[in-house]
Amino acid sequence: MNTNLSFACDYMEGCHPVILEKLTETNLIKTPGYGLDDYTRSACEKIKSACWKPEAQVFLLTGGTQTNATVISAILKSYQGVVSASTGHIATHEAGAIEACGHKVLTLPSHNGKIDAAELSRFLVDYDQDANHDHIVMPGMVYISHPTEYGTLYSHSELEEISRICRQHHIPLYLDGARLAYALACPQNDLSLQDLAALCDVFYIGGTKCGALFGEAVVITVPGLIPHFFTIIKQHGALLAKGRLLGIQFDTLFTNHLYEHIGKSAISAADQIRDMLKSNGFQLCYDSPTNQIFCIIDNSVMDRLLSQVECSFWEKYDDSHTVIRFVTSWATTQEDVQRLGTVLSFCFS
Amino acid sequence: MNTNLSFACDYMEGCHPVILEKLTETNLIKTPGYGLDDYTRSACEKIKSACWKPEAQVFLLTGGTQTNATVISAILKSYQGVVSASTGHIATHEAGAIEACGHKVLTLPSHNGKIDAAELSRFLVDYDQDANHDHIVMPGMVYISHPTEYGTLYSHSELEEISRICRQHHIPLYLDGARLAYALACPQNDLSLQDLAALCDVFYIGGTKCGALFGEAVVITVPGLIPHFFTIIKQHGALLAKGRLLGIQFDTLFTNHLYEHIGKSAISAADQIRDMLKSNGFQLCYDSPTNQIFCIIDNSVMDRLLSQVECSFWEKYDDSHTVIRFVTSWATTQEDVQRLGTVLSFCFS
Amino acid sequence: MNTNLSFACDYMEGCHPVILEKLTETNLIKTPGYGLDDYTRSACEKIKSACWKPEAQVFLLTGGTQTNATVISAILKSYQGVVSASTGHIATHEAGAIEACGHKVLTLPSHNGKIDAAELSRFLVDYDQDANHDHIVMPGMVYISHPTEYGTLYSHSELEEISRICRQHHIPLYLDGARLAYALACPQNDLSLQDLAALCDVFYIGGTKCGALFGEAVVITVPGLIPHFFTIIKQHGALLAKGRLLGIQFDTLFTNHLYEHIGKSAISAADQIRDMLKSNGFQLCYDSPTNQIFCIIDNSVMDRLLSQVECSFWEKYDDSHTVIRFVTSWATTQEDVQRLGTVLSFCFS
Amino acid sequence: MNTNLSFACDYMEGCHPVILEKLTETNLIKTPGYGLDDYTRSACEKIKSACWKPEAQVFLLTGGTQTNATVISAILKSYQGVVSASTGHIATHEAGAIEACGHKVLTLPSHNGKIDAAELSRFLVDYDQDANHDHIVMPGMVYISHPTEYGTLYSHSELEEISRICRQHHIPLYLDGARLAYALACPQNDLSLQDLAALCDVFYIGGTKCGALFGEAVVITVPGLIPHFFTIIKQHGALLAKGRLLGIQFDTLFTNHLYEHIGKSAISAADQIRDMLKSNGFQLCYDSPTNQIFCIIDNSVMDRLLSQVECSFWEKYDDSHTVIRFVTSWATTQEDVQRLGTVLSFCFS
Repeated sequence: MNTNLSFACDYMEGCHPVILEKLTETNLIKTPGYGLDDYTRSACEKIKSACWKPEAQVFLLTGGTQTNATVISAILKSYQGVVSASTGHIATHEAGAIEACGHKVLTLPSHNGKIDAAELSRFLVDYDQDANHDHIVMPGMVYISHPTEYGTLYSHSELEEISRICRQHHIPLYLDGARLAYALACPQNDLSLQDLAALCDVFYIGGTKCGALFGEAVVITVPGLIPHFFTIIKQHGALLAKGRLLGIQFDTLFTNHLYEHIGKSAISAADQIRDMLKSNGFQLCYDSPTNQIFCIIDNSVMDRLLSQVECSFWEKYDDSHTVIRFVTSWATTQEDVQRLGTVLSFCFS
Repeated sequence: MNTNLSFACDYMEGCHPVILEKLTETNLIKTPGYGLDDYTRSACEKIKSACWKPEAQVFLLTGGTQTNATVISAILKSYQGVVSASTGHIATHEAGAIEACGHKVLTLPSHNGKIDAAELSRFLVDYDQDANHDHIVMPGMVYISHPTEYGTLYSHSELEEISRICRQHHIPLYLDGARLAYALACPQNDLSLQDLAALCDVFYIGGTKCGALFGEAVVITVPGLIPHFFTIIKQHGALLAKGRLLGIQFDTLFTNHLYEHIGKSAISAADQIRDMLKSNGFQLCYDSPTNQIFCIIDNSVMDRLLSQVECSFWEKYDDSHTVIRFVTSWATTQEDVQRLGTVLSFCFS
Repeated sequence: MNTNLSFACDYMEGCHPVILEKLTETNLIKTPGYGLDDYTRSACEKIKSACWKPEAQVFLLTGGTQTNATVISAILKSYQGVVSASTGHIATHEAGAIEACGHKVLTLPSHNGKIDAAELSRFLVDYDQDANHDHIVMPGMVYISHPTEYGTLYSHSELEEISRICRQHHIPLYLDGARLAYALACPQNDLSLQDLAALCDVFYIGGTKCGALFGEAVVITVPGLIPHFFTIIKQHGALLAKGRLLGIQFDTLFTNHLYEHIGKSAISAADQIRDMLKSNGFQLCYDSPTNQIFCIIDNSVMDRLLSQVECSFWEKYDDSHTVIRFVTSWATTQEDVQRLGTVLSFCFS
Repeated sequence: MNTNLSFACDYMEGCHPVILEKLTETNLIKTPGYGLDDYTRSACEKIKSACWKPEAQVFLLTGGTQTNATVISAILKSYQGVVSASTGHIATHEAGAIEACGHKVLTLPSHNGKIDAAELSRFLVDYDQDANHDHIVMPGMVYISHPTEYGTLYSHSELEEISRICRQHHIPLYLDGARLAYALACPQNDLSLQDLAALCDVFYIGGTKCGALFGEAVVITVPGLIPHFFTIIKQHGALLAKGRLLGIQFDTLFTNHLYEHIGKSAISAADQIRDMLKSNGFQLCYDSPTNQIFCIIDNSVMDRLLSQVECSFWEKYDDSHTVIRFVTSWATTQEDVQRLGTVLSFCFS
């Protein structure tokens, strides 16, 4: 039925079939609204268990930009901003949602999508020592993403160091896990859910790009960090009337370790594509080990390629080359990968 | 499986089964994100046709509070407020979402949930004539709901008059149709989708409470009224990555006139319940003809009732009486209605 | 030089001459900016002494609306609103400044400009008990003005009761003293600066209408209530570069009890005007004992009056009558009062 | 009387004596509030004449951050940001005031405080061509300062080119003239008030740092660019009750070309200081021709210097050197300059 070949993104399909089965099975059962139902309760318990954090609070929201804006503005004081890599999603592709809530995004240099702990430390120390710091925006929390927007991963020791610096400065650390399943399924990743829960003050477990129809699970590991978060969610228009839909989805994703496994085929497909690109002479960039693959391509080859397969323009590399991105997902099939192989050989020839 | 008897609200179940079938059938088809898919395009076309407004713009959002905040703040200038009945959803139950976007809700008296055209006119004229009006919030749009929060309906002539006044003052009229299907299915209603499209500048067709899993379709009947609404939606965290989910749902609701019929059984169940209440000696209030039924109940009877059936506390009537609300929906069964009948007889006896 | 007779408001002149002398005397002395100068330090110390609150924090801002918006938004959490009389300045004449900062003004009935302690208590209790209170704006502070916008005064026992209720609910009480000097100079007033400091969590001592060129002194009686208020003031555009101007003015006003005496002639002039109005058959209203005088006047008489003296239209009383307002100030002269007497006799005749 | 030697900033004194005389002379004259008085009317007329723009609208505000936030948020749509040099005052030292109004500051590289026209053009073109531009903040206006925060000046041809690019993209150009008098008095400057009025859509003429007690005059050269700006000013808490104070000050500054001459002695003092620094072997930087002088100084020399004269730390240059800033003003005396000369010789020796 689906004949177009596309690696444009990881939200092109609906959801993992078992989620749809659950939604169908429970469809006519009556539940209270707004996440006060048993499915949501169960999902939150399972997430807390998976994180080894019984004291955590879990809230289920609908989408990533919504989650970032709601969490960040709930944590920051009016005079504070959020520190992010200059390439962070909140700094670039959220249409100014953080600023619309009244806060500046304070950017640090991006190292393939990551911030550097030493640069973060210097930034926070410089702020503290600035004679005029009463006139400038105070850093009030740190935002990172894992995997990053460039598909790269923080190592355990990198995250530990960032976390240590944040705690030393009494600044909450927030991790955007929109594609977290693809980190968890990646052999190079050494950060477990339990590590994230131990090292971050808040993080979210992405559903939308990781097998759900939609949904992001916010885990507040420090109880009481955000008082009245329910009302804050409502005020942001982020409270789903039929909260059960989020509950059922995350309950399914956290049954039988589905979430931790759902990205495996995507990683293996991405590895195959990386190999195919390299063996066809394409030059990879950013060294991403997860489900996003970036390569530098001659513009004339790109035109030929894009006539056969959909992928995304990432950025201009130089006057005659472009960085493009392929993305795999839990729904990528081996057939898709084989077809891409054929296309790549054709483009290279 | 579902043994508890509840008339607490109209969002206790999932969705109309045919929607779930469609979601299942299309689940693995690849589409572009953010509502740029063919399902969304088709849904929007069908809605425009149903409204006899080929020039309208249609946008699909997730929930009611989100839709209200996004639309209202997109239309108002910074120095303007939105006029609403004091009982309007935006004035009472949205956790200050409108104010969080920077705008005052300017309230008019509620007449069983409705505003009065003459009072609106006087309010707008008084503003124009106020010597200090440069120091006060300018009315920048009018918000009404149909059915209202009290289940009541505007008549065609009432809406026509409100619309005329708004246009005379060059103020957009916005109608919240969270429960619109229950108006369309109600014999007392004389306002069609085409009438709403002709008389309002913007309105939304509610999905969440009317058979969808979630979703509200915003119809901008005046093309160009809200430039860059796509980006505004994104900035509000209201842009669904898998926009197809909204497209498929509204495409289904607007196929074979499903939306216009989906509320019929709810209205007939509500009528039965109104009759049962009256015949059991309960006193109805607000005179709602739609799927919400309000009655004044002695507190001692209420306790007995609530042990048998779930319904909502609405407001205190006096020291010994309470107003309670029963709500029916497209999912209400005749069996539910019969069971309620038995409960009512028992409470009354 | 000034020949027109006007009782339109209490900010028609510059400032008390002694302030201008001080400004002239210090004009070329170099000081640091932003209120870090010795004049400001001295002014704040004198204010704390006058309030018997050595632990208080004092900040000097420029104007009333600015002060209200800065203080209120600094205290409220994002999900909270401020409780005010429906006639409160923040609810009516500040162009939506509070809402522009993201917060709802929650109104209580106005009793000649005042809120009623019992009604406040009921409102706060009702909020606590509302089953849906997670969906509505939480009352986060209480705003009152003294004198009120209607020139009326809270009694000591009234303020004590309001304060008690606020503390019981852990809600800060904020008092707008834009015209505070006219209360302090009024024989009917039994609330001293020390009482305000003891009973309120924050209040401001108005300068603009009370003898200064401009300026309002915010007294935070609970130290630490507003962390980083300096930066918040800056962010609101409310930090005066030459903060010394505020310092010098308030230092002067709080030298030799000037502030406590500066309103005396205005009150005595107002009393004379009240007597003249009554003896000429005009009907007073709101029973204000301070520097604002309200009376109900036949529209035909009003036209004659307004051709001779400037005063303000307050509100329509009925189809043939209007409420008008006369205001006296520290700058009102006995000559002005005599001239008004002549005008009133003429109008009445 | 004033014994400390300070070149810390240009707002250490009160105001030009002639302004204080005018304030004293008019002190007890009654005027209407909020800038509706004759002094304000006269000041605005004189400013329009000086700009050769009879059709312009002029509004008088109190301070720079306030003016920037009010103007910028009044012009931008909710989905737009303001383009600025990364060193622009709004990007660095306004405590996030722009973001607090909901808008992102989009930064371009700073070239000694200035933006480059070609880089601006590329930025605007890139935005237009970005495939994802619906997900990112749209550039909605351009902010520059003249003189810049580094004391540098745009040339006529530079401003002309920037203006041309803005108009080509239908983007308003806004110029922050906090220190404009020091540009107008500088021989290297080739931009007159008339040029600014011709090339900018809005700009402000700084009073606070240029001889007034406080005040900034906003000139909207495109009539109708900001509807209801009066109410917007009120909502921002930026409307001065006694608007006459601004009117009198700007009326004085624009009488007998005072504003255009008031900076002359400051420029000549700055030139003397630049010469003294150079002849004492200090290394200047940023090449500022106006009243700010920057030099790179060895940290050990700096300590000796700061014990004798107050100036500002600007930024760290390297581990053993610092950039410091001297500022002159209309109030700087030849005696101050001579004393500084002695101090510099002493430090150098």
